[in-house]
Amino acid sequence: MSIVVYLPSPKTSAKWVARLQTVLPEAEVVSGHEPFDAAQVEYAAVWQPAHGFLAGLPNLKAIVSLAAGVDHLAADPELPRQIPVIRTIGSDLTQRMREYVAMQVLNLHRGMPEMLASAQQAKWAPIVAPVAGQRKVGILGLGNLGAAAAALLAQIGFETRGWARSPKDIAQVTCHHGPEGLKRFLQDCEIVVNLLPLTPETRHILDASLFQALPKGACLVNCGRGDHLHEADLLAALDNGQIAHAILDAFPIEPLPEEHPFWTHPNVTVTPHIASQVDPDTGSRIIAENIRQFAKDGRCGDMADMQRGY
Amino acid sequence: MSIVVYLPSPKTSAKWVARLQTVLPEAEVVSGHEPFDAAQVEYAAVWQPAHGFLAGLPNLKAIVSLAAGVDHLAADPELPRQIPVIRTIGSDLTQRMREYVAMQVLNLHRGMPEMLASAQQAKWAPIVAPVAGQRKVGILGLGNLGAAAAALLAQIGFETRGWARSPKDIAQVTCHHGPEGLKRFLQDCEIVVNLLPLTPETRHILDASLFQALPKGACLVNCGRGDHLHEADLLAALDNGQIAHAILDAFPIEPLPEEHPFWTHPNVTVTPHIASQVDPDTGSRIIAENIRQFAKDGRCGDMADMQRGY
Repeated sequence: MSIVVYLPSPKTSAKWVARLQTVLPEAEVVSGHEPFDAAQVEYAAVWQPAHGFLAGLPNLKAIVSLAAGVDHLAADPELPRQIPVIRTIGSDLTQRMREYVAMQVLNLHRGMPEMLASAQQAKWAPIVAPVAGQRKVGILGLGNLGAAAAALLAQIGFETRGWARSPKDIAQVTCHHGPEGLKRFLQDCEIVVNLLPLTPETRHILDASLFQALPKGACLVNCGRGDHLHEADLLAALDNGQIAHAILDAFPIEPLPEEHPFWTHPNVTVTPHIASQVDPDTGSRIIAENIRQFAKDGRCGDMADMQRGY
Repeated sequence: MSIVVYLPSPKTSAKWVARLQTVLPEAEVVSGHEPFDAAQVEYAAVWQPAHGFLAGLPNLKAIVSLAAGVDHLAADPELPRQIPVIRTIGSDLTQRMREYVAMQVLNLHRGMPEMLASAQQAKWAPIVAPVAGQRKVGILGLGNLGAAAAALLAQIGFETRGWARSPKDIAQVTCHHGPEGLKRFLQDCEIVVNLLPLTPETRHILDASLFQALPKGACLVNCGRGDHLHEADLLAALDNGQIAHAILDAFPIEPLPEEHPFWTHPNVTVTPHIASQVDPDTGSRIIAENIRQFAKDGRCGDMADMQRGY
């Protein structure tokens, strides 16, 4: 059995090769940036593979996405659509995301961006926020990451709601679903966090009509994908005060170009796609388990549904 | 029964008078900034009272501190020391503090100050932090506020420890105590949060020797009092890298003077004493309960020990 690893950076690919080789000594693990025998490859562990890369592997049994999302695969027009896809959802991925969401929701709730701006002018300008129990916050998307983040927000004390395509049940979180549920979810949501999967239906879901459905002066955290956000609509909503502040972690082009208006907008905070990630140490152990189970049973717990898009 | 209210600001005092009058209709509530009959006053609800103000109330039965701390009373050289002191510890005070501590510990853990500085130069500079379970954080002071904050840090997933003068027991928090325990508490604490009461023993406890006992590059959050911190020692520790970043919410002189070096230091974040406070709405209900219980029993659950200093 041979496993090929491909991420855009040859250096990061080499790191993953080394870690996977350690935890899967029975396999030969190779980098897609080095010469390798394509006919031998049964598994490809990839993040943003070069278009056509996967199509060039004739004996592929499964594709392993080095992320919870699979939109980076669906973006390849030559993706071999009959090959099963295994997502990688590690406890570290979920943990990093719940930390990030809690941190940014707390920052917005307590007015940190505004107080940091005052501090830069040596201006003492206290903001007294209501307690979390009087703050309505919501998570769009209640998959593994969204559900874990919502549960932590509720533990911190926020009045927490969530929205997903299908009904969900999370302790202390009011769960809405479907198109009608979205309106009810949004109407009193003061801080909204996007953690939806990126699919054709959710592309540009963060647009003028969604912002308009929020109470005036709401705040946004996007830790989904850059393509969830309609950037021009956000800039307009910031200008007319419909959105008070946005914290953005994902962008259609990364790194975010130096001349992009988000960098300098006083009501936008940019973080460099660090909300969460699978790291080679934890990720390789999860992938080894998933590959072994898939080899035995023809499936594992983290299979993606490529029709549905997540 | 008459109750006098005194805070340095006449406007804030008037706000408290109005709220207390509503919840204690049986009493006459007056502002210390207006003329009043001192002989009628049985209770004084105060924050940073003018020195000598309390000594001028001959029939005082109890002093109500409009805060969890009582150091602002102890600072009055004419404080009538025989009068019992009631602290005000509301659920909102505790909740605001646990929010603030969680927010700032997460910000330091995830490298937010550094990433925000990069973003100001349109620089994409990701910082990948370990998961919280691999981050050792600690709380100095395990009273009502410290214990609640430590418990939340543990729930978020941090490896959490605490230190107090006497032994404590908090689920999932390693509790140290006494002078020997302090060294063990500090030796591997990557982010340390101060929530000690201010007493002669804890004045300037955040000094060179404490910083030196931390691992190199540790971070500090001070949401106790300004006088806990030896400012010159902190500046030196920041300069030599012993402390990587400090988030400070309390200062000996507030507002922090415009020319103070903390405002412009790249590794210091100043917040304008907003970590927590008792607000008139919730606070007045708690004070009403405490006063009624004290009037009946001669004591209540939130009595301060002025000998001990908290």
